[in-house]
Amino acid sequence: MVVAQDTTRPTSASIPASRRFILGVLATLPALATRFGAASAQAQTAPLASWNDGPAKQAIIDFVKATTDHASPSYVAPEDRIATFDQDGTLWVEHPLYAQAFFALDRVHAMAPQHPEWKNHTPFKAVLANDLPALAQFSERDWAELIFATHAGMSQAEFLKIAGQWLATAKHPRFKRLYTELIYQPMSEVLEYLRANRFETFIVTGGGQDFVRAYSQRVYSIPTQKVIGSSLDTKYELKDGKPELMRLPKLFFSDNFDGKAIGIDLFIGKRPYAAFGNSTGDREMLEYTGAGDGARLKMLVHHDDAEREYAYGPAGNLPDTKVGTFSRSLMDEAKTRSWSVISMKNDWKRIFAFET
Amino acid sequence: MVVAQDTTRPTSASIPASRRFILGVLATLPALATRFGAASAQAQTAPLASWNDGPAKQAIIDFVKATTDHASPSYVAPEDRIATFDQDGTLWVEHPLYAQAFFALDRVHAMAPQHPEWKNHTPFKAVLANDLPALAQFSERDWAELIFATHAGMSQAEFLKIAGQWLATAKHPRFKRLYTELIYQPMSEVLEYLRANRFETFIVTGGGQDFVRAYSQRVYSIPTQKVIGSSLDTKYELKDGKPELMRLPKLFFSDNFDGKAIGIDLFIGKRPYAAFGNSTGDREMLEYTGAGDGARLKMLVHHDDAEREYAYGPAGNLPDTKVGTFSRSLMDEAKTRSWSVISMKNDWKRIFAFET
Repeated sequence: MVVAQDTTRPTSASIPASRRFILGVLATLPALATRFGAASAQAQTAPLASWNDGPAKQAIIDFVKATTDHASPSYVAPEDRIATFDQDGTLWVEHPLYAQAFFALDRVHAMAPQHPEWKNHTPFKAVLANDLPALAQFSERDWAELIFATHAGMSQAEFLKIAGQWLATAKHPRFKRLYTELIYQPMSEVLEYLRANRFETFIVTGGGQDFVRAYSQRVYSIPTQKVIGSSLDTKYELKDGKPELMRLPKLFFSDNFDGKAIGIDLFIGKRPYAAFGNSTGDREMLEYTGAGDGARLKMLVHHDDAEREYAYGPAGNLPDTKVGTFSRSLMDEAKTRSWSVISMKNDWKRIFAFET
Repeated sequence: MVVAQDTTRPTSASIPASRRFILGVLATLPALATRFGAASAQAQTAPLASWNDGPAKQAIIDFVKATTDHASPSYVAPEDRIATFDQDGTLWVEHPLYAQAFFALDRVHAMAPQHPEWKNHTPFKAVLANDLPALAQFSERDWAELIFATHAGMSQAEFLKIAGQWLATAKHPRFKRLYTELIYQPMSEVLEYLRANRFETFIVTGGGQDFVRAYSQRVYSIPTQKVIGSSLDTKYELKDGKPELMRLPKLFFSDNFDGKAIGIDLFIGKRPYAAFGNSTGDREMLEYTGAGDGARLKMLVHHDDAEREYAYGPAGNLPDTKVGTFSRSLMDEAKTRSWSVISMKNDWKRIFAFET
């Protein structure tokens, strides 16, 4: 098949781990409209109320019917109803940078007084000087250095506290809202609709597992044990007889590209019946999901709404070399394999819950 | 504290990974009575019906009351009710070898026709000749070679099928029963009792994660996504456009000793409120559990019943160098930290469900 012969696709082998961990951070800084259009307000009585009628909404409804109706040949026992969701760009806004990248940059500023040496050391120097052109040129090594400096060297409990404090105050540069307010209302409705039909909903993110766990229960009603992501090595230490798990500056697992299929098998041990993504990093998750028998729902969110959110990779015109995007080859594969493509512009009545 | 200064304890750093993966396989082959005593049959109406009244049973009941009664100062919200269980020696029989070690040995015999070179190659040669004295002297490298030869080189789906077929027919040398019949009835009742009180029950095993996942739902009512264990590297491969996860002969994660605390944080992201083990491999899991605030249940199964099951590490008289056992230092730590020790002989009315 075309897909199997696509030797240019990024894999664990071809993309260094540190780059995969911070994938997409180097996305272009858009100078687009800072205002978004008004969305239709609608009472949340029916499932998927923020979705326009159309093939995407219908695909979700048909899938749930096929897998939960006892009379259906595609009926799935409740214990096997697994649905997996990418986070950045699928459940919440990922532009102009991942929230976690903004977090890393803010942490550099916050930690700078304890690190006077950073003033003269790239990449910290550029971050502290707010040198955006330099930042846009950061190498993967630069980003790895920023991530390790800001995400390691403390206990897991301390990291969760730091991340939680940041999330409670930091705001998105365009929307001027907390990042946790920038979750896609239509996707929240998919999570709820699937759970109401006894699906277990998992986040499978290329981003940091612990960062997402800091808010997943509150924001998505997804408990920490259903958040799979990229992670750092940790070390068990007894301090005065009391154990701590200390975060080390070393990548343990990269949950992106083929890592998403591997991570799903590692953490869940079952093939999903439904999977949602929005970029090349989600390709293998959708392939793995689609390779199962019976009814399987494979959906990609396409960011084609510059007015209300962002438009990038429109109609899949970007090459695979631009990682973390809806690339041309991903769009080709979606067509070949009959994956559903969600148009934010056409399929979603509103993007955010605050658009009432 | 005494414990923190115990520099002789095994850790990830001091025990090679391959040895940790097959921990306990080298346990002595006991020439003990092959018959077991009759146990009292009792209707399963009350919770923990196979437990004798005593401090161990009472500790479980008190813990559940303290964590689930809204009026209790130690009340725990249902989404945080996490209980973790070691498997080998805690939920089912681990002597004279782990079931998974018997599986590896049987696989060597089954695969031998495709590997004529094994006849002249240690350790396979000794296995094929049923040379038990030689087997008892296997090095960690020998065992790693056996595990990799029998557990890798196939897809995850194929491995699960092979393990499932073995479990459906292989019998324990002393009890002449399927291994899945040799689960401890009193511990099954603890699993049920905790789940009835809205605890999520996880297996946290030093053994192979996928091996346990082959039967966990059927035997323990624990789904694959709640089985954490040691694992091999896997590789995502497209074969004729269809993805497979191939098992590689390389250890990915060792879920034993400090790895159990690390694995719990990695997979669950929450500190357990209850943890059950039986050996030095469970030490850090109990320490990590006990370091949380509120009511925390830490229990160790002590194998002191040679007549009905086995007696090893009686009264904790073994040094730590004998890994995978209830060692002297573990017994000391249990006393220091007030962990509950379950006496199989005194606390359990019956050991197995078939003793009716």
